[in-house]
Amino acid sequence: MSALQGTSILGSHRSAVGSEHFFAVDPASGDKLDPAFYAATVGDVEKAAQLAAAAFSTYGRSTGRERGNFLRKIAANLEAMSEELIERAHRETALPKPRLQGETARTCGQLRLFAQVAEEGSWVNARIDRAEPERKPAPKPDIRSMLRPLGPVAVFGASNFPLAFSVAGGDTAAAFAAGNPVIVKAHPAHPGTSELAGGAIATSVRECGLPEGLFSLLFDGGTKVGVALVTHPLVKAVGFTGSRAAGRALMDLTSSRPEPIPFFAEMSSTNPVFILPGALRERSDAIASGLHSSFTLGAGQFCTKPGMVFVERGDTSKGFQQKLRELVNGQAGYHLLTAGIRSSYRSGITTRKNNADIKSVTLAPEPTAESTQSVGAALFEIEADAFLKNHGFEAEIFGPTTLIVETSHPEQMLRIAHRLEGHLTATVHGTEKDLRQFADLIAVLETKVGRLIFNGFPTGVEVTHAMVHGGPYPATSDGRSTSVGSQAIFRFCRPVCYQGFPNDALPEELKDQNPLGIWRMIDGRMTREANVAELATRAS
Amino acid sequence: MSALQGTSILGSHRSAVGSEHFFAVDPASGDKLDPAFYAATVGDVEKAAQLAAAAFSTYGRSTGRERGNFLRKIAANLEAMSEELIERAHRETALPKPRLQGETARTCGQLRLFAQVAEEGSWVNARIDRAEPERKPAPKPDIRSMLRPLGPVAVFGASNFPLAFSVAGGDTAAAFAAGNPVIVKAHPAHPGTSELAGGAIATSVRECGLPEGLFSLLFDGGTKVGVALVTHPLVKAVGFTGSRAAGRALMDLTSSRPEPIPFFAEMSSTNPVFILPGALRERSDAIASGLHSSFTLGAGQFCTKPGMVFVERGDTSKGFQQKLRELVNGQAGYHLLTAGIRSSYRSGITTRKNNADIKSVTLAPEPTAESTQSVGAALFEIEADAFLKNHGFEAEIFGPTTLIVETSHPEQMLRIAHRLEGHLTATVHGTEKDLRQFADLIAVLETKVGRLIFNGFPTGVEVTHAMVHGGPYPATSDGRSTSVGSQAIFRFCRPVCYQGFPNDALPEELKDQNPLGIWRMIDGRMTREANVAELATRAS
Repeated sequence: MSALQGTSILGSHRSAVGSEHFFAVDPASGDKLDPAFYAATVGDVEKAAQLAAAAFSTYGRSTGRERGNFLRKIAANLEAMSEELIERAHRETALPKPRLQGETARTCGQLRLFAQVAEEGSWVNARIDRAEPERKPAPKPDIRSMLRPLGPVAVFGASNFPLAFSVAGGDTAAAFAAGNPVIVKAHPAHPGTSELAGGAIATSVRECGLPEGLFSLLFDGGTKVGVALVTHPLVKAVGFTGSRAAGRALMDLTSSRPEPIPFFAEMSSTNPVFILPGALRERSDAIASGLHSSFTLGAGQFCTKPGMVFVERGDTSKGFQQKLRELVNGQAGYHLLTAGIRSSYRSGITTRKNNADIKSVTLAPEPTAESTQSVGAALFEIEADAFLKNHGFEAEIFGPTTLIVETSHPEQMLRIAHRLEGHLTATVHGTEKDLRQFADLIAVLETKVGRLIFNGFPTGVEVTHAMVHGGPYPATSDGRSTSVGSQAIFRFCRPVCYQGFPNDALPEELKDQNPLGIWRMIDGRMTREANVAELATRAS
Repeated sequence: MSALQGTSILGSHRSAVGSEHFFAVDPASGDKLDPAFYAATVGDVEKAAQLAAAAFSTYGRSTGRERGNFLRKIAANLEAMSEELIERAHRETALPKPRLQGETARTCGQLRLFAQVAEEGSWVNARIDRAEPERKPAPKPDIRSMLRPLGPVAVFGASNFPLAFSVAGGDTAAAFAAGNPVIVKAHPAHPGTSELAGGAIATSVRECGLPEGLFSLLFDGGTKVGVALVTHPLVKAVGFTGSRAAGRALMDLTSSRPEPIPFFAEMSSTNPVFILPGALRERSDAIASGLHSSFTLGAGQFCTKPGMVFVERGDTSKGFQQKLRELVNGQAGYHLLTAGIRSSYRSGITTRKNNADIKSVTLAPEPTAESTQSVGAALFEIEADAFLKNHGFEAEIFGPTTLIVETSHPEQMLRIAHRLEGHLTATVHGTEKDLRQFADLIAVLETKVGRLIFNGFPTGVEVTHAMVHGGPYPATSDGRSTSVGSQAIFRFCRPVCYQGFPNDALPEELKDQNPLGIWRMIDGRMTREANVAELATRAS
């Protein structure tokens, strides 16, 4: 059992115990949890950045095999402490243990997925255009390119996934896989979980004989450390998951740096659901149950929570809405992660409840005072005309609530889709006939989100090669990227091109003989086997 | 022979003749050239944006074959008017006709390269993760992703490549290939060339039966149109080539929009050249000649002009420097593209000439007054210690000048490399032994640039699959991108993921049968042949 120290991890050392400190809180009891966590200083940020830059000069040139070993070691070390990790995470978040077990498995699976990608090696997008010494009027030089890491990456842990989107989460794994050092700013809602996971990474760095600066973990209950981190000249990219206000503030800081850097924030999404007429007729009850599970999963604190549901008004929709009301009323309270989230939730609910355009409000009773962070679920219903009048209904309310929007004709769904801002996901329930009839709707939704779901629910994000967990602003700061799945590796690298280099001086990925056996594009043609010098055919 | 109208192209129409106007100027004579070009209005920007958004709803879903036809048609239409195009470009830029012939060929070649990429189709990075209905605890859904276009793209023509980086240049070709409409802001230094090329694109839109809003061309001698364009809510990405001041101003505008958008600026680069001892001993004269040609090519107005040259002081370097001085003195004057560029060049030269740290100045005589835009070449020499004292020596001076920096020991080159900001290229002249000895130098340079050149010169950017014409800030606004070569297509798209969709409702690229025969990643494995439904093997 590791004893928590409450101090930041700076490479192989710990920061000093300062004066500013904060505590984790048990959302189920409202109790403060020991120990105190001491805020890092701006000097600690400087130290972490210097260490990371030093580590980058070697780790940036490490092999895929070395990176794979390191990522697998982190996963093994996390698994070795999983009981302690889950126990602490459960106390800090009140998330059920089975969910945290699943999240631990997902976190380790994600580390191993990135290990596999780094080891396999083709992710670097190696391209070779062979020389043509006889070309007129001038010879064509040999040109080869591949992706290279950016440098120290800052990662902000998210409140709602204390493991999978936190210290050892997707951004950290992707940044390591691409060859970058990582400095994590721990989320103050689960500092103990963060220290445990951070300890597992620091141990892995040591066990793999890698430079200590490859990983640091900084605590802060306020914003000072985050600001110092994203504005530090040695930090070359940032990954963030959190609120729209905080995300935009950090985004503006990174873009106004003397040297602006890539900034990836996942910020807010209401994940529209469109229930088309055929599906509603065929499976009204099943959709209502699935939807209820989805918007209350994790107490409605998922970035993919369906927060707006569009359904055509009619006899079937009445039954659907009635069923949802019953489900909301029949459910006990939910523990929210922090007092701040609870306060935002309650104020969002109150505003919506008092809005004259809302035609129906279903509020499950608030649990009695055994906890300071519990709330009841809430269902709101509104007509499409009223929804369209007021942009405020598209805003995310973090917590177990959703909004049913009744449309009166098919064109209204299309009009709503056109007006949507960027979201992570859009879901369509329909029959195959519905899909054909609403093809225009799908086409519009495709321009608004990163993931389209058919006859499913948006919560539950698979960690795979094809996953896109991203979407146009304000869902994220950069819709050309995903924070989940193996494509997240592309956040933290950039292409570098070598012209006229002798074979020996090239990176392994670009050498004639293809010693790593990776997929490469040679003269425009994908191939894995070829020795460049021996290639006889050319791309058409 | 087309008669130039001097008005903006708004889809299939022309803007009105307004009051604000400007003229092109012949840099060789200083004469104004007819006709007057009328500035577009903010209303014209609105019109172009609306038309582009309307065109996107169909063109965004066009096939690779349709995009390829369109791009090939543009190339053919440009070639059909090449005589007139080159004549006008020659008058507006004073660039030699053979260079403009070459640039026309390059522009058409680049359009056809993107046609080929669009037609082949694998660029969309199609990925399929197959369902596992039996997976526990929950079934795994079918997930497929591919790149989709962003929407209307604004492109700013560059002054120094009136064809290849202008109206029908690389950004325009890449944006079209990816499925986006384009609105070009013409560079005011070559409006007639812009109108001709824009006419060829508009004609191609019509001849291919594509929506008129796919292309618009806006004139403005000032900044009003550019600002309106990059801040327009319907514009979803921007490509820009120009000065650091203008690039950063537009970058700040796009990042402070309510909805920030991807912004790709190529801004400034001094393209350091390191001449290592072995190479200097072996080929001092050849390097001096090649370097002189490179920094005076296009009157030194190339973004890849070598503007800093590092060489170890010694007997051989003396001969090298003497040779360069002779080459500079032996050359007649150069026509710069605009009066503004000439004025910046002369002020840069004067500042440098008067700098006490400069130990040698070689100024070719200024040509006599036959032109308002002619200048002489300039060579400056300085010691490394003085160079390291003052960051100002790293700034780009657009025009035929370079700076020789004499180092006194090998570590100084490394120290200089560490201190460099981002550049488009770095060049190393060396023997294979030099390369081994200076491996650290190469490793540092790799983190500073987009392209490393060995025993060559940075000017002359091949348009190929592996080319990277980009680099860390301030060389560009986003070092994860290239503006030249087929990878430029990745600027103007983002991944979209489809979960649980029936085969018929999927885009062709993601259908089971792979009807387009493209390369796809299925369960982590690259394949082109497979029918997803029949695939028996799984990724390891």
